[in-house]
Amino acid sequence: MIDIKYAGICHSDIHTARNEWGGGTKYPCVPGHEIAGIVAAVGSEVSGHRVGDRVGVGCMVDSCGECEPCRAGEQQYCQRGATMTYNTPVGEAVQPGGHTLGGYSTQVVVTDNFVVTIPEGIGLDAAAPLLCAGVTLFSPLRHWGAGPGKRVAIIGMGGLGHVGVKIAAALGAEVTVLSQSLSKQDDGKLFGAQHYYATADKQTFKDLRGHFDLIINTVSANLPLDDYLRLLRVDGTLVLLGLPEKPLSVQTFNLANGRRSLAGSMIGGIPQTQEMLNFCAEHGIGAEIEVISADQIDQAYDRVVASDVRYRFVIDTATM
Amino acid sequence: MIDIKYAGICHSDIHTARNEWGGGTKYPCVPGHEIAGIVAAVGSEVSGHRVGDRVGVGCMVDSCGECEPCRAGEQQYCQRGATMTYNTPVGEAVQPGGHTLGGYSTQVVVTDNFVVTIPEGIGLDAAAPLLCAGVTLFSPLRHWGAGPGKRVAIIGMGGLGHVGVKIAAALGAEVTVLSQSLSKQDDGKLFGAQHYYATADKQTFKDLRGHFDLIINTVSANLPLDDYLRLLRVDGTLVLLGLPEKPLSVQTFNLANGRRSLAGSMIGGIPQTQEMLNFCAEHGIGAEIEVISADQIDQAYDRVVASDVRYRFVIDTATM
Repeated sequence: MIDIKYAGICHSDIHTARNEWGGGTKYPCVPGHEIAGIVAAVGSEVSGHRVGDRVGVGCMVDSCGECEPCRAGEQQYCQRGATMTYNTPVGEAVQPGGHTLGGYSTQVVVTDNFVVTIPEGIGLDAAAPLLCAGVTLFSPLRHWGAGPGKRVAIIGMGGLGHVGVKIAAALGAEVTVLSQSLSKQDDGKLFGAQHYYATADKQTFKDLRGHFDLIINTVSANLPLDDYLRLLRVDGTLVLLGLPEKPLSVQTFNLANGRRSLAGSMIGGIPQTQEMLNFCAEHGIGAEIEVISADQIDQAYDRVVASDVRYRFVIDTATM
Repeated sequence: MIDIKYAGICHSDIHTARNEWGGGTKYPCVPGHEIAGIVAAVGSEVSGHRVGDRVGVGCMVDSCGECEPCRAGEQQYCQRGATMTYNTPVGEAVQPGGHTLGGYSTQVVVTDNFVVTIPEGIGLDAAAPLLCAGVTLFSPLRHWGAGPGKRVAIIGMGGLGHVGVKIAAALGAEVTVLSQSLSKQDDGKLFGAQHYYATADKQTFKDLRGHFDLIINTVSANLPLDDYLRLLRVDGTLVLLGLPEKPLSVQTFNLANGRRSLAGSMIGGIPQTQEMLNFCAEHGIGAEIEVISADQIDQAYDRVVASDVRYRFVIDTATM
């Protein structure tokens, strides 16, 4: 059992709480999959965590453990479907109400394998958003080899994007932010970006043609992907993290010309989540946060929807 | 100068000859970019080829030679645009008429760097289609690591697909053909495929879900790509070789779930074309061909469009 200290607010929480995903929300609904806290009790067979440990829980709380992705530590791609931290049916025997309940709460019980250690050196509040936003960026950056000599672009400077800039820079890549406007340029450079371009300016797409090895899109809206594919070098990859409702549209020529790839990525596995936390602690990386009390959640939701947050809200669960 | 012996017929030839690509055909038009012949004369600075050598010319006859892809031997992605074997403007000084003329001819003069050696052990007739179809399949199969322990699917059993089956099998991959019907199943297995499925049968898409590391689509029509993406394992790639006119449509979720990639690939560079010919000679691979005379070209075009060829027409230029 974990005493929850902080819970980050992810845009997914809002979609779920407001039942915006095809009516699939199960009530009562407790969102929250960016959980940071202290171990309050452990079962008799738990060896990896002790009472008093600083720990985190992200988007998943269980998976089959037997399929190929699970055995490879990529539980997010579990062939039977991972058990997500909230809103996943698990039956009345496991959880009264029949579905998982998330981190906007003071306590949670989670299978030990799905609990990670938050190293000293990151505050629990700034660590909370790393459990979802952090690993969602760290995983593709590592998978597609962001590092010295690589030119990486991050589309969007929101909750996901700002963490992506910090991590990509710490990995040693040359980082460019592609944001609608230049309004967050100073922050972007502070976080480690060498370059910052406004996508509202058509000249950006001329200047950067054929420039990047890797572009990571943190924006959920349907962007003109062809414009972004043309910014890739030969063998470059455009990775989509958001899941827009409409199918995406792409001209095949923009893939064939330069052997480019369009790919997707979902959060990251548990071992990689731990690796990310260790990396962030080592490099002094936390999310930029605004800590709120429980009675400010509704207002915070409206501000997230309006992109009026720099850069992630975190609920202080002591106010519950 | 090369005395052309055989010239393969590629579907691109038909589109160009019939001016089906946006009215971009320049007349007089001589198609043909699958050229096999014998060196008849060399310039004073040519050291790599001698009179009497068995040689081939593929889709390109020149490129800038200075950009990053050119220096990497990936001339097909030349940033200034490679000079294609036919229908590319080069000016009256280089070629009377002002544009390149292809292989449906008895002789051709080509920059030595764009001429490859056809090893003993492949007939010039069976080698001709390898210069386009062969390298178009060899390049992505090599790039995405087809080999022992990898499950590779080839969509389509036509001029491109049948060579892909042979090469993928020789590379040691487990090869599956995904064809509309089972009509060419016996051939497919003869060429090295272990499995053969009809895509007209919906059960195929249930049975093979999450099965392949690499799927190569040789079909130009707009296929239901989401159905094929779901056949990929975690980290699998679907490579498109055809260039359908309409933009392709894909649900982002099918990329994100399993970190899958959708990619494109165009022919291959000159060094890789030579590597492919050496590989094919070593493994006894040639295209399956039907040799025709020059006066049968119109009829052959109609049969290609009707998919009535097993598997590539090759013109015997002695009949010109």
